[in-house]
Amino acid sequence: MHKGIAAGDAPNTRVRHRKRNSDVGAGAGKSNGSHLLVNDTSKYKSFLVRAYSTLWMIGGFALIVYLGHLYITAMVVVIQIFMARELFNLLRKTHEDKHLPGFRLLNWHFFFTAMLFVYGRILSQRLVNTVTPDKVLYRLVTSLIKYHMAICYSLYLSGFVWFILTLKKKMYKYQFSQYAWTHMILIVVFTQSSFTVANIFEGIIWFLLPASLIVINDIFAYICGFFFGRTPLIKLSPKKTWEGFIGASITTVISAFLLANIMGRFLWLTCPREDLSTGWLHCDPGPLFKQETHALPGWISDLLPWKEITVLPVQWHALCFGLFASIIAPFGGFFASGFKRAFKIKDFGDSIPGHGGITDRMDCQMVMAVFAYIYHQSFVVPEVLSVDKLLDQIITNLPLEEQQALFMKLGQMLQEKLIGS
Amino acid sequence: MHKGIAAGDAPNTRVRHRKRNSDVGAGAGKSNGSHLLVNDTSKYKSFLVRAYSTLWMIGGFALIVYLGHLYITAMVVVIQIFMARELFNLLRKTHEDKHLPGFRLLNWHFFFTAMLFVYGRILSQRLVNTVTPDKVLYRLVTSLIKYHMAICYSLYLSGFVWFILTLKKKMYKYQFSQYAWTHMILIVVFTQSSFTVANIFEGIIWFLLPASLIVINDIFAYICGFFFGRTPLIKLSPKKTWEGFIGASITTVISAFLLANIMGRFLWLTCPREDLSTGWLHCDPGPLFKQETHALPGWISDLLPWKEITVLPVQWHALCFGLFASIIAPFGGFFASGFKRAFKIKDFGDSIPGHGGITDRMDCQMVMAVFAYIYHQSFVVPEVLSVDKLLDQIITNLPLEEQQALFMKLGQMLQEKLIGS
Repeated sequence: MHKGIAAGDAPNTRVRHRKRNSDVGAGAGKSNGSHLLVNDTSKYKSFLVRAYSTLWMIGGFALIVYLGHLYITAMVVVIQIFMARELFNLLRKTHEDKHLPGFRLLNWHFFFTAMLFVYGRILSQRLVNTVTPDKVLYRLVTSLIKYHMAICYSLYLSGFVWFILTLKKKMYKYQFSQYAWTHMILIVVFTQSSFTVANIFEGIIWFLLPASLIVINDIFAYICGFFFGRTPLIKLSPKKTWEGFIGASITTVISAFLLANIMGRFLWLTCPREDLSTGWLHCDPGPLFKQETHALPGWISDLLPWKEITVLPVQWHALCFGLFASIIAPFGGFFASGFKRAFKIKDFGDSIPGHGGITDRMDCQMVMAVFAYIYHQSFVVPEVLSVDKLLDQIITNLPLEEQQALFMKLGQMLQEKLIGS
Repeated sequence: MHKGIAAGDAPNTRVRHRKRNSDVGAGAGKSNGSHLLVNDTSKYKSFLVRAYSTLWMIGGFALIVYLGHLYITAMVVVIQIFMARELFNLLRKTHEDKHLPGFRLLNWHFFFTAMLFVYGRILSQRLVNTVTPDKVLYRLVTSLIKYHMAICYSLYLSGFVWFILTLKKKMYKYQFSQYAWTHMILIVVFTQSSFTVANIFEGIIWFLLPASLIVINDIFAYICGFFFGRTPLIKLSPKKTWEGFIGASITTVISAFLLANIMGRFLWLTCPREDLSTGWLHCDPGPLFKQETHALPGWISDLLPWKEITVLPVQWHALCFGLFASIIAPFGGFFASGFKRAFKIKDFGDSIPGHGGITDRMDCQMVMAVFAYIYHQSFVVPEVLSVDKLLDQIITNLPLEEQQALFMKLGQMLQEKLIGS
């Protein structure tokens, strides 16, 4: 039986290809000659399945973005739970688990502890801003936030002690490997999701633009590779080609520039959200989203019908996002491919027809979300400490008397300085 | 050959015992009868070796504490490098490494990236406070700090790409395991050290008291176990006994109460340090370190010659530290024991005669340092945002014009509020 060539209706057509091109060996590769990836009969079916589920995902995604920050966050959390489930199951051994009742529950104990910790940090100030009117609730929330770290640490410690007390002889190695694996998963999953959620609340565009660019890059790498792919790119993923990589890079950078111009026009996408409500957003979007008109150089205006172009400054940042999404982020995918080959896994799961597991789709998103956050914090937010931010801290966190005390002290200090200079 | 019983002069006497009590099996255990751990000829030699190196360590440690914050931090960094080296070597396979030139360098690349990230975060504000006088250096430092996260992320990404580009066929599994292992080590090592360093700068006492309590608990668990130990405590560490555990707990809680009273009298130990100099410290130590006099209840003052006792409020916090150090922190040790058994390692290293590797001595310290930090932040620092802290932020971070702008705005807002109420 030649599993690699027999076309079937199982969802993992993607895997079968890889198997054919690599595992079945050099013979199949050579017979394809220079048309390494172009001639392939089962490829078209795979293409359709994948295109169909991609469209569904994009549609659902657009609806969620329309609904707003809280819904997007909820989506991130759901994705995160699915990812964690896929990854937890990966190294699970049913035989060993039978002897360890409750051992898998421990994974989820750590998962929810990490969730409380990460989202508590990101969302606590916004939660305070949301519940202000009600005095009792307000006090409850602020004191919970005050002891947030202590609560999370106690929860973690209880898991830690639970783990040690349930260690079973002859299972040590399995249990410790699982413990380490759980921690690795939590780090990977929560790094991704926490940076994503932080981006969302800075303004949906800081989440939507990077995420879209990864999707665009994926789609065009697939399409360009599908129609023009000849030269294999990297041994780790035999289905990836240089043609796909370069075609996708060009498309992604151009898309980034154009998309930023479109997205930058909607307050819904550009305003940061300071609370956890889903109401309409009003804000001064700031200089990044104000149109600037640039005159085009003579030789371009001779060729094209325009004399000048209108650009939002955010588009220049978008170019950086485009470059990163097409050049560095794919390494997230290579990493996942390598990981799957190292541990002889076909896919991380089978949740999305034609795509594999959710984790398979999230590999590059993760690298991108972290980049977007750090880029935004380092190069977009002009000063970490601005007058308005400080003022906001003072007004929301200090009782009135202390605000007055601060005011008096600051006045004194300024007076001294001005006299001194 | 009965390796377990033959007395030798190798440093790992500790391991040999464990081997004897567990691996050699029930027979040896039974012949010892109820005097499970008391009768043992090679034990005395081990005791002397261990006592000798313990004294050396305590002496060196006292000198470093006397020298101050920067020296203690340097010590933490050195310990951390040794720990990382021990742990990196643990799962290293010489045969595989031969085929992967430069692969071990990658570990240290990640190590120094993590170091830059962690210490940059903790110490950046203090670095700014230290270099203020020189204008050029000040600008260099502040702009480096501004892009600190971006720099660290680029370094991390370059390591990530480097890893993927040097993946070698048939080595995938080894390389990915090493990658995961490196990350686990870095998390363990840097969690410990970053919390420790944060504690040091909050006031040396917040580092010294917890660290001392772990040492005291270790020593008294050893001594009490040595002289009275009969009942095994936990299967993971057959040398630990209930007698040692309970004896040590009592001693540790009492020591915590007394030590806090002594340490709380020195400004050198109680003042926080806001810069990176090593000069003398002056501060108002705050209410935690002001003596309070409590009258003793009648029945106690009948028995003892005192009518009242003088207590520093910090001593009540110290009791919590003592309880944690003797009840929860030992689980750090159990965890390390379990880990060593799971992977069939004798000790993490052999740097300290009689103790094993540095990592073997740091297992409980790690759990304790994290606790001390979180406890201090949650229950000792009364408000995360105090008037003085905010004022400090304003003065050091905003240019003069913005300070004035803030002052005016705050004044307006307060006026509106006062009129409103």
